[in-house]
Amino acid sequence: MPKISEKAHSMPASPIRKLVPYAEAAKAKGLIVYHLNIGQPDIDTPQVALDAVRNLDRTVIEYSHSAGFESYRKGLSDYYKKNNLPVETEDIIITTGGSEALTFGFMSCCNPGDEVIIPEPFYANYNGFAIQAGLKVVPVTASIETGFALPPVEEFEKKITAKTKAIVICNPGNPTGYLYSKEELEKLRDIVKKHDLFLFADEVYREFCYDGATPFSVMNLSGIEQNVILIDSVSKRYSMCGARIGALISKNKEVMNAALKFGQARLSPPTLAQIASEAALNTPDSYFEEVVNEYVERRDIMVDGLNAIPGVFCPKPKGAFYCVAKFPVDDAEKFCQWLLEEFEFNGQTVMMAPANGFYSTPGKGKQEARIAYVLNKESLKNAVTCLEEALKVYPGRV
Amino acid sequence: MPKISEKAHSMPASPIRKLVPYAEAAKAKGLIVYHLNIGQPDIDTPQVALDAVRNLDRTVIEYSHSAGFESYRKGLSDYYKKNNLPVETEDIIITTGGSEALTFGFMSCCNPGDEVIIPEPFYANYNGFAIQAGLKVVPVTASIETGFALPPVEEFEKKITAKTKAIVICNPGNPTGYLYSKEELEKLRDIVKKHDLFLFADEVYREFCYDGATPFSVMNLSGIEQNVILIDSVSKRYSMCGARIGALISKNKEVMNAALKFGQARLSPPTLAQIASEAALNTPDSYFEEVVNEYVERRDIMVDGLNAIPGVFCPKPKGAFYCVAKFPVDDAEKFCQWLLEEFEFNGQTVMMAPANGFYSTPGKGKQEARIAYVLNKESLKNAVTCLEEALKVYPGRV
Ligand SMILES: Cc1ncc(COP(=O)(O)O)c(C=O)c1O
Ligand SMILES: Cc1ncc(COP(=O)(O)O)c(C=O)c1O
Repeated sequence: MPKISEKAHSMPASPIRKLVPYAEAAKAKGLIVYHLNIGQPDIDTPQVALDAVRNLDRTVIEYSHSAGFESYRKGLSDYYKKNNLPVETEDIIITTGGSEALTFGFMSCCNPGDEVIIPEPFYANYNGFAIQAGLKVVPVTASIETGFALPPVEEFEKKITAKTKAIVICNPGNPTGYLYSKEELEKLRDIVKKHDLFLFADEVYREFCYDGATPFSVMNLSGIEQNVILIDSVSKRYSMCGARIGALISKNKEVMNAALKFGQARLSPPTLAQIASEAALNTPDSYFEEVVNEYVERRDIMVDGLNAIPGVFCPKPKGAFYCVAKFPVDDAEKFCQWLLEEFEFNGQTVMMAPANGFYSTPGKGKQEARIAYVLNKESLKNAVTCLEEALKVYPGRV
Repeated sequence: MPKISEKAHSMPASPIRKLVPYAEAAKAKGLIVYHLNIGQPDIDTPQVALDAVRNLDRTVIEYSHSAGFESYRKGLSDYYKKNNLPVETEDIIITTGGSEALTFGFMSCCNPGDEVIIPEPFYANYNGFAIQAGLKVVPVTASIETGFALPPVEEFEKKITAKTKAIVICNPGNPTGYLYSKEELEKLRDIVKKHDLFLFADEVYREFCYDGATPFSVMNLSGIEQNVILIDSVSKRYSMCGARIGALISKNKEVMNAALKFGQARLSPPTLAQIASEAALNTPDSYFEEVVNEYVERRDIMVDGLNAIPGVFCPKPKGAFYCVAKFPVDDAEKFCQWLLEEFEFNGQTVMMAPANGFYSTPGKGKQEARIAYVLNKESLKNAVTCLEEALKVYPGRV
């Protein structure tokens, strides 16, 4: 029997899926499990997008252009400009989710053996995309005490070697919900410029900013236009994760030409989903206002609820729909597993994602877990109660 | 400005796209250009698939399981069994087109630096997928004189080294249309077994077999169940290329577990397209009968028409919807470009894909071009006439 590859061996298990068998067993026992572990919102997809699908007027579902429908790219450029991001139609390649944009970006810009610096905790699948491209992830640790603010510039400088090719950030952040300020981004700009690195910015949560905060995009950092690669997606914006439509965006023509070659090899992004995504550009502003209000309420229930539990600390994020909380436990992974295997409160329990999977440095995040507040408020309240009760009886409490 | 990657530099330009600017210029001059260069059929997608999309009953377009909807995988397993392929639900991972199945397969089975042997001419994007995974393509040349039959076993043996990890075939073949016999496949089985290689078989054209021929699947080769990786796609079967739904199929659990990890990193295949693909499983047999009849007529018009032109030779394929023809010209690439740049007959001309892009050995296929007979019969007749007239006046005729 021929052997599988080394890459396959080194692909990490997903931190949000590790505990799935325990959750299934809990459900099999009849428990209600509140799924705070995954970033799949329960929010409806905008009506305009669903209608476009239902009114499909094609009789052949053909390949699109490898860079996506031109009309959609144009519309997307308009959307960015409306949001003050200087993005032209030709700066956009439509991809199969933000995931493919990351893969194309890494493969276009980096050689196997190159290093990419990423503030941790970070979106765990960056590991998988890095492994696919043969890259080494070099973490710079952000701390829960500062709410996961950008680590000091010196921490980045320390990690830069001859092999460093890029810095990758996520803003607003998954898993932290942290929103980088203009000043923080300008610090990154200076490092990127000084060392002539690529800056990958994953801004798929751009619409989810709270308390009046407005996101500052890397597209507005002047002086590094040729270094910036923006990753975008409709998954979260329009609650249409299953569409699988994202975008790779850059002013760097060499990068765009390279990425298009990878795009041509896989022929085209999904056509039906592009039709939905193009229609979604006409989503009324009221949709986003409602969604943002809903998430602010959910966040407040979750974060305030967590901080009211003795021994729990959770910085209040300004963006995305995740938070990372620190629990008074020996080991958050054990705690999460115990919640599913041993605990119940009124027939309910909670599933969270242990945060160690979002850190690259071994041992980091041991007391932390990521929580996605993607359920309705009632469920979130119940989930907080479960956690409160659980911490009263968890044997590994510290 | 940071440099792009070496992989990006080595990604080849697509042989079906190289001449696009010339085609556009020809159209700008007012010419009708018959597009025989691309494998995008004009056949309607089955009504059941379109209806499923139009009757979408979801309000949230969610991620699916990373391996695809379980109901779809079950249905697909039934489809294979109906076609005598022993494929269970758990042997299937739904991918974003056959393209992604190839990428996942290569990455799961092969290490950078490994070699994969592929009979040439072959589907040109295998090059791109190989480059992405860091693999070296080692061609074994099939010859137009034998209609592109499988090269003798000794030719494969000669190319096998310590680095050889897999053999890749396409059956029925793109670009050749050649359908491998059971005997040919058993020869491959023996080589694969002897050297413990993976056998990737791209069977995306399975439904397109003519003159009463039935395709023999690698899934029915006994003794190499752990070596076989089947690549499938709905793109051609249901004329829904834009859906972007394919499948990676294997009995090898290690390979499936590895591929699923890559699948989890990219989250899910497209949901809307899976709904369409699942519904397409109920396409009536009459649909395929009509389509096959149509392609047989088209093939006969094209291939008989070509062979009637003095100096042209085109083996008659038994499958897919392509043929490779040899022209009495100095250089088929020049000829194809000249057709677009300099020639016209009654305001019409033809676009073909020069075959050199489907060969890996430099210089091979110099007088050959690939023709996709994906247009209506009237257009194909006109295209043949154009080629006949063109060869009367082409200055590089030999
Ligand atoms: C930070 C971040 N980037 C990228 C993605 C990938 O999303 P998609 O491929 O659905 O666009 C996700 C999904 O959860 C994410 O959280
Ligand atoms: C031989 C072969 N394999 C794979 C593919 C990829 O198709 P898709 O990704 O649309 O399934 C094609 C498309 O033309 C093909 O001809």
